[in-house]
Amino acid sequence: MTDTVRLVEVGARDGLQNEKQTIDPSIKIDLINRLSGCGLSIIEAGAFVSPKWVPQMAASDTVFTGIERRASVSYPVLVPNMRGFEAAAAVGAEEVAVFTAASETFSQKNTNASIDETFDRFAPVIRAAMDQRITVRGYVSCVLGCPFEGDIDADAVARVAGRLFDLGCYEISLGDTIGVGTFGGVRTMLDRVTRTVPAANLAGHFHDTYGQALANILAALDSGVRVFDSSVSGLGGCPYAPGASGNVATEDVVYMLENAGMATGVDLGALMTVSRWISETLGREPQSRVTRACAAHEAHR
Amino acid sequence: MTDTVRLVEVGARDGLQNEKQTIDPSIKIDLINRLSGCGLSIIEAGAFVSPKWVPQMAASDTVFTGIERRASVSYPVLVPNMRGFEAAAAVGAEEVAVFTAASETFSQKNTNASIDETFDRFAPVIRAAMDQRITVRGYVSCVLGCPFEGDIDADAVARVAGRLFDLGCYEISLGDTIGVGTFGGVRTMLDRVTRTVPAANLAGHFHDTYGQALANILAALDSGVRVFDSSVSGLGGCPYAPGASGNVATEDVVYMLENAGMATGVDLGALMTVSRWISETLGREPQSRVTRACAAHEAHR
Repeated sequence: MTDTVRLVEVGARDGLQNEKQTIDPSIKIDLINRLSGCGLSIIEAGAFVSPKWVPQMAASDTVFTGIERRASVSYPVLVPNMRGFEAAAAVGAEEVAVFTAASETFSQKNTNASIDETFDRFAPVIRAAMDQRITVRGYVSCVLGCPFEGDIDADAVARVAGRLFDLGCYEISLGDTIGVGTFGGVRTMLDRVTRTVPAANLAGHFHDTYGQALANILAALDSGVRVFDSSVSGLGGCPYAPGASGNVATEDVVYMLENAGMATGVDLGALMTVSRWISETLGREPQSRVTRACAAHEAHR
Repeated sequence: MTDTVRLVEVGARDGLQNEKQTIDPSIKIDLINRLSGCGLSIIEAGAFVSPKWVPQMAASDTVFTGIERRASVSYPVLVPNMRGFEAAAAVGAEEVAVFTAASETFSQKNTNASIDETFDRFAPVIRAAMDQRITVRGYVSCVLGCPFEGDIDADAVARVAGRLFDLGCYEISLGDTIGVGTFGGVRTMLDRVTRTVPAANLAGHFHDTYGQALANILAALDSGVRVFDSSVSGLGGCPYAPGASGNVATEDVVYMLENAGMATGVDLGALMTVSRWISETLGREPQSRVTRACAAHEAHR
């Protein structure tokens, strides 16, 4: 399985979004710049959402205008509606992301809108973005389970993913928001979704809450997916089970893929240095197994 | 992939073996009895090795004679030589396990014997066991990497596994002792080994030190392996990187397999209760992601 995999680094947005402590924009800028120095080519840089809803993302414009933008790197920002899109476009965003869910109840609770209403909100965003040659990525949450509805039908995922694709999203990120999925569910879901959206236009966004993320990535690789979202140091706990881990750690994904002969373009050593720095800055241990094992190994020498 | 998987629970032996604190035999007896109550059908119950080498296993005879032996459960014990075998047979062991390595240097450092010398030691053990209708399992360590030699050739693994099989071991457990392997290495190794030993006679023994264990189990499942070693609560750190995790947690394996439609016969809820109890008894947090996530989820309710 010699192949190339693209990683979408979500630590600076999806990861830090759930932090209780307010993080100074300068730290986010520093983090994003350090991440681009590791060879990551897509780095989520913020969210232009109402600070009333997500206080942690209030200074996304300051962050976005503060980073050193590398020509080879894309810095997508999340936009929930036209207002957010206009704010993102105003600071020069070249890629935006919209988000909805495969679960009706989750959509209501998370965005205060039905799935149809989320489409009403971002259909004009996607049109405006395409007019301005800004690329659009789509996120679908709860693809393998919902904290309110439980199991989610693969048809529901395919329906939402297909709508995003038809509207013009170049890539649809399928999120196991609460991390309950296993390889069996991944296979069933992707068998169905790839009949609607080509595997080349799909990304896997797996959470490690139940330790399943790497096995799920392997299952998705076998189904033809070659793009995965991950978070340096595993930043971002599970909002539905505080204390449990959330996003899969980028280091663990890079370790697995590179050692299995797949190219990510990421310098694992440099990434582990960033992981240790941001963890120390936030006053915690890295959530990455690889970073922890390497630290334990060095301490033992 | 509807199928049956057999789990070999190694927490009470392989797991506790690395504990620094001396654990009272009564706790081990309690642990083994609780584990058999969860539906596990193979539970490692001790090691008849010199207490000079492994002090933690000194009371294996007390433990073995103290457990409530269920007819449906096998309780293998580790024996390094004839002396250990005779001690195990004397207390009524019906299954024993012998161990060697795919790495010459590891074999020397771990058992003070070359690979050939380990075979000299246990060839008579296997013969005597077969005479007494005692079944024998074989362990091979360092199948995906060695702390001293680095990469291990798949041919070396196949050679050692083949010798154990030819001598009469009914099952060969292939151990990633330091947890460095990834799915690519698992596939390459099993492609080679299954040309010498049928997949039906192989078991995977994966460590989660680098977070790769579940993905490696999935890769091994795809190669036809249906038996896996695991440890309740992830008992047993990595002796070559203290502070890092070792054995994959049984709960995480059960969660993955059962949710993917494979039958393990294990009651996950009961197992998590045992996991919390032994972790509390040892004064630590469970290493299982599933047990932790469920605890965090309950605390959040």
